[in-house]
Amino acid sequence: MDQGQQISYGKNVTTGLHVVIEPDVTIGDDVTIGNHVVIKSGTQIGNGVQIGDLSVLGKGPASNKKMALKPAADLPPLRIGDDVKIGCGVVIYAGVALENDVLVGDMASIRERVTVGESSIIGRNVIVEPKTTIGKRVTVQTSSYITSDMIIEDDVFIGPCCSTANDKYMGRGNYHHQGPIIKQRARIGNNATLLPGITIGEEAIVGAGAVITKDVPSGQTYVGNPGRPIK
Amino acid sequence: MDQGQQISYGKNVTTGLHVVIEPDVTIGDDVTIGNHVVIKSGTQIGNGVQIGDLSVLGKGPASNKKMALKPAADLPPLRIGDDVKIGCGVVIYAGVALENDVLVGDMASIRERVTVGESSIIGRNVIVEPKTTIGKRVTVQTSSYITSDMIIEDDVFIGPCCSTANDKYMGRGNYHHQGPIIKQRARIGNNATLLPGITIGEEAIVGAGAVITKDVPSGQTYVGNPGRPIK
Amino acid sequence: MDQGQQISYGKNVTTGLHVVIEPDVTIGDDVTIGNHVVIKSGTQIGNGVQIGDLSVLGKGPASNKKMALKPAADLPPLRIGDDVKIGCGVVIYAGVALENDVLVGDMASIRERVTVGESSIIGRNVIVEPKTTIGKRVTVQTSSYITSDMIIEDDVFIGPCCSTANDKYMGRGNYHHQGPIIKQRARIGNNATLLPGITIGEEAIVGAGAVITKDVPSGQTYVGNPGRPIK
Repeated sequence: MDQGQQISYGKNVTTGLHVVIEPDVTIGDDVTIGNHVVIKSGTQIGNGVQIGDLSVLGKGPASNKKMALKPAADLPPLRIGDDVKIGCGVVIYAGVALENDVLVGDMASIRERVTVGESSIIGRNVIVEPKTTIGKRVTVQTSSYITSDMIIEDDVFIGPCCSTANDKYMGRGNYHHQGPIIKQRARIGNNATLLPGITIGEEAIVGAGAVITKDVPSGQTYVGNPGRPIK
Repeated sequence: MDQGQQISYGKNVTTGLHVVIEPDVTIGDDVTIGNHVVIKSGTQIGNGVQIGDLSVLGKGPASNKKMALKPAADLPPLRIGDDVKIGCGVVIYAGVALENDVLVGDMASIRERVTVGESSIIGRNVIVEPKTTIGKRVTVQTSSYITSDMIIEDDVFIGPCCSTANDKYMGRGNYHHQGPIIKQRARIGNNATLLPGITIGEEAIVGAGAVITKDVPSGQTYVGNPGRPIK
Repeated sequence: MDQGQQISYGKNVTTGLHVVIEPDVTIGDDVTIGNHVVIKSGTQIGNGVQIGDLSVLGKGPASNKKMALKPAADLPPLRIGDDVKIGCGVVIYAGVALENDVLVGDMASIRERVTVGESSIIGRNVIVEPKTTIGKRVTVQTSSYITSDMIIEDDVFIGPCCSTANDKYMGRGNYHHQGPIIKQRARIGNNATLLPGITIGEEAIVGAGAVITKDVPSGQTYVGNPGRPIK
């Protein structure tokens, strides 16, 4: 094994039992790694990071014959900023960047080519698909689903169990996919449904259980199925 | 290590491979512990308990700068009653009490300060937030989301994929949070949405996919978005 | 240990660290098994299969006093076809058959007596209940819930976060359960809700967030709550 393939440990790193760390991983100072954690080759971990038990960091994507969009190869490494906290049973792919002070809850998963901005919260059991950008101080609450090719700006609040889509034709072709765009400080109620390509304006509110089929203007509140401005 | 920090094993305890049991854990008679299980310090496990592979028991909470409500410190230990069955890939926090004969499905997770009454079922992939009380013989089906500060009385049935909320202002302040209150024997259909602070009366029924924005009286059936009494 | 209880390894099998493989497991050629994987007794794995870290294969079901329908005992083994890819943190039960080229995403779970046809995709965090049949080239997207006793025909597309039910009386009796029947090439939008026993016809479309309370004829599109034909 040459020098470049070794693991680089900072000061005061604590690791649990049965941990698997592959070559070429970089670990900062004051990092805590739980039991049964798997860290794949190339992953870069900042200072003060906490990683819960049974999590997988830096995984590569898979595909089968049916899959229209093949996942990217040659991903950059997973990069984890300072003071990030990662729960138990989390799966994060290569090609993800988590900025400083991000919190990722238990059983959450984040696919490749996603960026999560400083101090944002990815709740427990949240699943984030590839190529989505999440701003700073965003909250994505428990069990919400963030599709691919979404843009979530700073200070957005997404309640629990929200659902988003990016594919108007539901698997019938290999055209452009576009997830929703959620502008600054917008708030989405629990179990809301957002259709592909819509924009939720700044400071807009989507009510709990609403089904949003077209753009919501800035500052307005939409509720119902289909979603309409509140009376 | 002093006497108090040792692990107390009952008779006929079976443990899988690569198990991590921290000091000061108490394990009853006839307990089966799967492979790669992690049991945190202080956890108390009754007689006849079965624990699936890759589960974490007695975890403490985490937080970041963005989080308005900091999680409690100094939690009591996780207490697991007799004959409880816990699936694979489960994460249960310190400060939880599971009464006798509770079943927790695979990949479910229960946060701190939650009580689950005798013979209740927490389905697979169900997530329960802090400070919620769940009665006896309750069924919470697969992938439902139980928010914090909820009260679920005895014999309630919650279908799969239900969503609940506790925060009217969606992350805009540090005021009182209140989840829904579900009274005895009420039944909630799959993928229903319950707003913060509402009460579902005794023997009431919420239809599948309904969005419940105000109280449902005892014995009545509400459907639709927004939920209204059935015609 | 007699001959029949040994593990049968094909050529070119790669296993990660801390793997637990029980007796009587059969593994084909060119199989890759991740770290901390648990493979239960009797499981049959074809050629070219890839298994991610921290997954459990071939688990048996559990029950408690409250559960009306007790799970089957004496299940056949889990059978995994050639070139199947299984993600990280997956739990698959005994009595499941995955045909060739199936892809099972991270954190998905499949209960006993389920068949998944060739080249189908079971997305991340999807939960499939017992006794359901899934055809060929089916896509079930992330976080959808597939209830028991469902029939999903070939080339069906189910978007993310869809919910299905099989129990009209919500836990009040031990009568016949029937999940939805989804005919060939039908497409279901994200976060749709399907009630027990309904049929979605061939090439039919269910809109995102729709609540489908009765049959949808072939080729028609239903939207809204309750679901109605599109104007």
